[in-house]
Amino acid sequence: MATVGFIGLGNMGGPMAANLVKGGHKVTVFDLSEAALEQARAAGCSVAGEVSEVTQGADFVISMLPADHHVEGVYLGDKGLHKTLSKTTLVIDCSTISAETARKLGAELQQSGIEFIDAPVSGGVGGAKAGTLTFICGGAESAVERARTVLNDMGKNVFRAGDAGAGQVAKICNNMLLSVLMAGTSEALQLGIAHGLDPKVLSEIMLQSSGRNWTLEVYNPCPDVMEGVPSSNDYQGGFLVDLMAKDLGLAQQAALRSGASTPMGSLTLNLYRSWAQLGHGREDFSSIFKYVTPQTKK
Amino acid sequence: MATVGFIGLGNMGGPMAANLVKGGHKVTVFDLSEAALEQARAAGCSVAGEVSEVTQGADFVISMLPADHHVEGVYLGDKGLHKTLSKTTLVIDCSTISAETARKLGAELQQSGIEFIDAPVSGGVGGAKAGTLTFICGGAESAVERARTVLNDMGKNVFRAGDAGAGQVAKICNNMLLSVLMAGTSEALQLGIAHGLDPKVLSEIMLQSSGRNWTLEVYNPCPDVMEGVPSSNDYQGGFLVDLMAKDLGLAQQAALRSGASTPMGSLTLNLYRSWAQLGHGREDFSSIFKYVTPQTKK
Amino acid sequence: MATVGFIGLGNMGGPMAANLVKGGHKVTVFDLSEAALEQARAAGCSVAGEVSEVTQGADFVISMLPADHHVEGVYLGDKGLHKTLSKTTLVIDCSTISAETARKLGAELQQSGIEFIDAPVSGGVGGAKAGTLTFICGGAESAVERARTVLNDMGKNVFRAGDAGAGQVAKICNNMLLSVLMAGTSEALQLGIAHGLDPKVLSEIMLQSSGRNWTLEVYNPCPDVMEGVPSSNDYQGGFLVDLMAKDLGLAQQAALRSGASTPMGSLTLNLYRSWAQLGHGREDFSSIFKYVTPQTKK
Amino acid sequence: MATVGFIGLGNMGGPMAANLVKGGHKVTVFDLSEAALEQARAAGCSVAGEVSEVTQGADFVISMLPADHHVEGVYLGDKGLHKTLSKTTLVIDCSTISAETARKLGAELQQSGIEFIDAPVSGGVGGAKAGTLTFICGGAESAVERARTVLNDMGKNVFRAGDAGAGQVAKICNNMLLSVLMAGTSEALQLGIAHGLDPKVLSEIMLQSSGRNWTLEVYNPCPDVMEGVPSSNDYQGGFLVDLMAKDLGLAQQAALRSGASTPMGSLTLNLYRSWAQLGHGREDFSSIFKYVTPQTKK
Repeated sequence: MATVGFIGLGNMGGPMAANLVKGGHKVTVFDLSEAALEQARAAGCSVAGEVSEVTQGADFVISMLPADHHVEGVYLGDKGLHKTLSKTTLVIDCSTISAETARKLGAELQQSGIEFIDAPVSGGVGGAKAGTLTFICGGAESAVERARTVLNDMGKNVFRAGDAGAGQVAKICNNMLLSVLMAGTSEALQLGIAHGLDPKVLSEIMLQSSGRNWTLEVYNPCPDVMEGVPSSNDYQGGFLVDLMAKDLGLAQQAALRSGASTPMGSLTLNLYRSWAQLGHGREDFSSIFKYVTPQTKK
Repeated sequence: MATVGFIGLGNMGGPMAANLVKGGHKVTVFDLSEAALEQARAAGCSVAGEVSEVTQGADFVISMLPADHHVEGVYLGDKGLHKTLSKTTLVIDCSTISAETARKLGAELQQSGIEFIDAPVSGGVGGAKAGTLTFICGGAESAVERARTVLNDMGKNVFRAGDAGAGQVAKICNNMLLSVLMAGTSEALQLGIAHGLDPKVLSEIMLQSSGRNWTLEVYNPCPDVMEGVPSSNDYQGGFLVDLMAKDLGLAQQAALRSGASTPMGSLTLNLYRSWAQLGHGREDFSSIFKYVTPQTKK
Repeated sequence: MATVGFIGLGNMGGPMAANLVKGGHKVTVFDLSEAALEQARAAGCSVAGEVSEVTQGADFVISMLPADHHVEGVYLGDKGLHKTLSKTTLVIDCSTISAETARKLGAELQQSGIEFIDAPVSGGVGGAKAGTLTFICGGAESAVERARTVLNDMGKNVFRAGDAGAGQVAKICNNMLLSVLMAGTSEALQLGIAHGLDPKVLSEIMLQSSGRNWTLEVYNPCPDVMEGVPSSNDYQGGFLVDLMAKDLGLAQQAALRSGASTPMGSLTLNLYRSWAQLGHGREDFSSIFKYVTPQTKK
Repeated sequence: MATVGFIGLGNMGGPMAANLVKGGHKVTVFDLSEAALEQARAAGCSVAGEVSEVTQGADFVISMLPADHHVEGVYLGDKGLHKTLSKTTLVIDCSTISAETARKLGAELQQSGIEFIDAPVSGGVGGAKAGTLTFICGGAESAVERARTVLNDMGKNVFRAGDAGAGQVAKICNNMLLSVLMAGTSEALQLGIAHGLDPKVLSEIMLQSSGRNWTLEVYNPCPDVMEGVPSSNDYQGGFLVDLMAKDLGLAQQAALRSGASTPMGSLTLNLYRSWAQLGHGREDFSSIFKYVTPQTKK
């Protein structure tokens, strides 16, 4: 069993750290929130007084932070962990940040002889709690293999997309595509409903035809077609509109940098931004279904 | 075994009629093309001298025609089949036309006491030849049940979406969604490629994540990721860009009529129209992958 | 001075009829609303007991109605005016309807030897009251010339776009473009504001640069940049979002019919439909400015 | 008359420097191209052997460079001009770069006590040659006033949008709006043409209606409507598609940074990128007119 330092105990990081303890690992955690630390302590984690303590004797340091500047702040700069990390520690950043920052972090840690992988996740808070996350990794093959020791206790799939940064790229490609599936499926269902079709029947038909996609399989955006999904629970829980808007912003940054043409992804960014701006940022991202409600005829 | 009249022996209708013969039915066909009639004769069909002959003694009259006005021309008007059809014949129109025309046709035939279902197909020329089409039907439940006698010899799935016209609505909803899946998947793959990812690896990751959809499963738009699909054959064969543009036009007509908001479907209509206009109308619709190629940096 | 029959006394038609009286014409009106008739009587019009009376001795019959089926209902069919109109009467339809219906109406009236022009207007309720409307006409040159006798008393510009129906086409082209100008100008101003620019200064700069357009000249969508426009009056009055959505629907119908590629116009249709659906249908169309408010950063 | 250092003698910078000489200023130039230097010498400029020479005794240093990293390279870093510039010199950067880089440059020069304004231009190569450019400036009011001494010899309009960086913001807002005007006007004209209207007549009508905008006034995208514009010269010359795509990329960067919702600007970026990718990058940006040609009916 491994010795693990864990930084960032939010809605995702908290349950991930708890699952590591369940897996038998020795876990030392750090967060700025006392409440989060208290919960982690109750789950069996040791609590570090300051961030640098999590590196002591660690086989792995794992971070799960909100955005690029938090990650840069933790690892780089004058007080960054790159000064205290041992060359035998593998750094695994599970945050969703830009590929550029991930690559930069990998390169700077490498200069100090420290191995790094980016390993953003999909699966949401539910997957974090259930230990069924998917990790999409970027880094050396050997490093990704080594990381499985801990990743397997927090998730059920570990993919390697390529070198450092590739995990972030693959994740935003997937999430950009997911936003397109969700918006497109919502439109198709609403168009059918507007013409008198039963959304359950239409969902079933498209599921068995060339319209089949993940949202029809497990995350139908139309209320009361499927049980146990956010759309049947007033769009509470799940993956927030605000977070989808953030990921789509990262996707467009990547597209701008590479000159990629992404008409569909540009449109979904604007749809999700508008939807958030209209007050739906804290709803599940399948609530975009409501956004494409047909205009009532006058 | 049934007596069937079959009108319209194009790329789809020809093999469909042939499969009916293989299924043991007595099939009389009509088409304006001598070559098509000759092929049908070789496949075991009887050839009608004029269109009205196909109704004689028919349990079913099936039509597979290019557009609304052909269907209206065959069944309605002074010389339309509604004058010669028997009340014991079930009319099955497999053409992809507007829901409005399908409903009108159903209503007018009903006035003469003739039963009607619309039964547009998905599965393309390959499915027509292999007898694995999907039929998406609109009409009375009893009529759809009765139609299975012949539909099952041409396809493997028969869905009922609702009353007359509902088959057309469900089909365009599905195909609008399909266009969104195809364009979105193409963009996501191109964005990954632009950032150095291997499209096979990225496809595999998204297939097992929330980006999963029909195109990644069986119709990957990126050349050489998958065998036996149009993208690996220079985008030849398959479902033409021109036909997708036609279906997306029908979808937008339906959206305009109902006041539905379809930002994604409007965009794919414009993408497919532009792509056709740029000379790619006769390529498979997965060729939209080439349309979102990143701009070469200067 | 002319004898005029006038059908349809809504927000536009009422003041137009009144201006004809001021111009010295003899005006007989018809509407289903008693209140509207009362107002017209007060303005000096004669009131017809039924619609066919307005044709009696009329040099011109002018109609200003909400949609295609109202226009068809008035002129065509068993009780249509085409039965009572004299060959010396010029029919001027000022409604905004599809070009197709206008062409059909022109053709059917021509069969009875009656001259017709379509003459949709721009300028809104304000222009109708002030007598400063613009008429965009379709029909024979001589008919358009003849119509000036009355059009000049209701407006200040009379254009001829081509034959019957061309007035409607030109109007929807113009209004589709207007929606693009409005949405684009709103976005540009919001982008500047989000980066700390003063919208008055930015408006002034773009007005004198290549971003110059009608909205910056006379209809700035940002509150308090310009006096006397809807944006400075809580978006009350002006040209309603619902009406813009209607015109954009007509534009997309025309695009679908002709195979035109209109990515911008498709997008504005969806923006205006969503905006209406979100409860802003009765606000001025410049309220789309609020729709593109930047998302507040978390 | 002033002593001026000028860096960057491309299609824009060359004629701008020549106009300064005509205005009576003493101009020392630097560029990496021998040919450009030779032309400048012929126009009466002194030629610097290396870039730092242009700062000697200069009242103004003006730069006109392709992109952010060129500007940063010239002014900042170990060999940057910030080391040799005098506190009495006003730096005027006329390049079109990100507002972020402009602000950074202003701040870093200010630390050395050197005044800076960003002053991107509109008006293109034609305006540069004719001395009729528009300068959109960001910086202190006094600095912008002082800059007029030289700007007035290269252009006819000088605007101040706000503090350092504001010039860049205003320029990209304007150019994003311009792309929307151009694409929207192209669509409207094509829609009219597809319905049989004469583009000259339709242009004239919209020019006098609410569709009026800069492109209809001076830069009609439809061939042979207007003389002396790129559309009437096979889309040669003018403002290149590649450059518009670059500016739209800057606009989207700014939108991403601020959370602005720009559905129209996102779409035009994708349209211009696709158009460039299809081989039209070196044509004038009004060639987007060809992109929205109606699909030929089958």
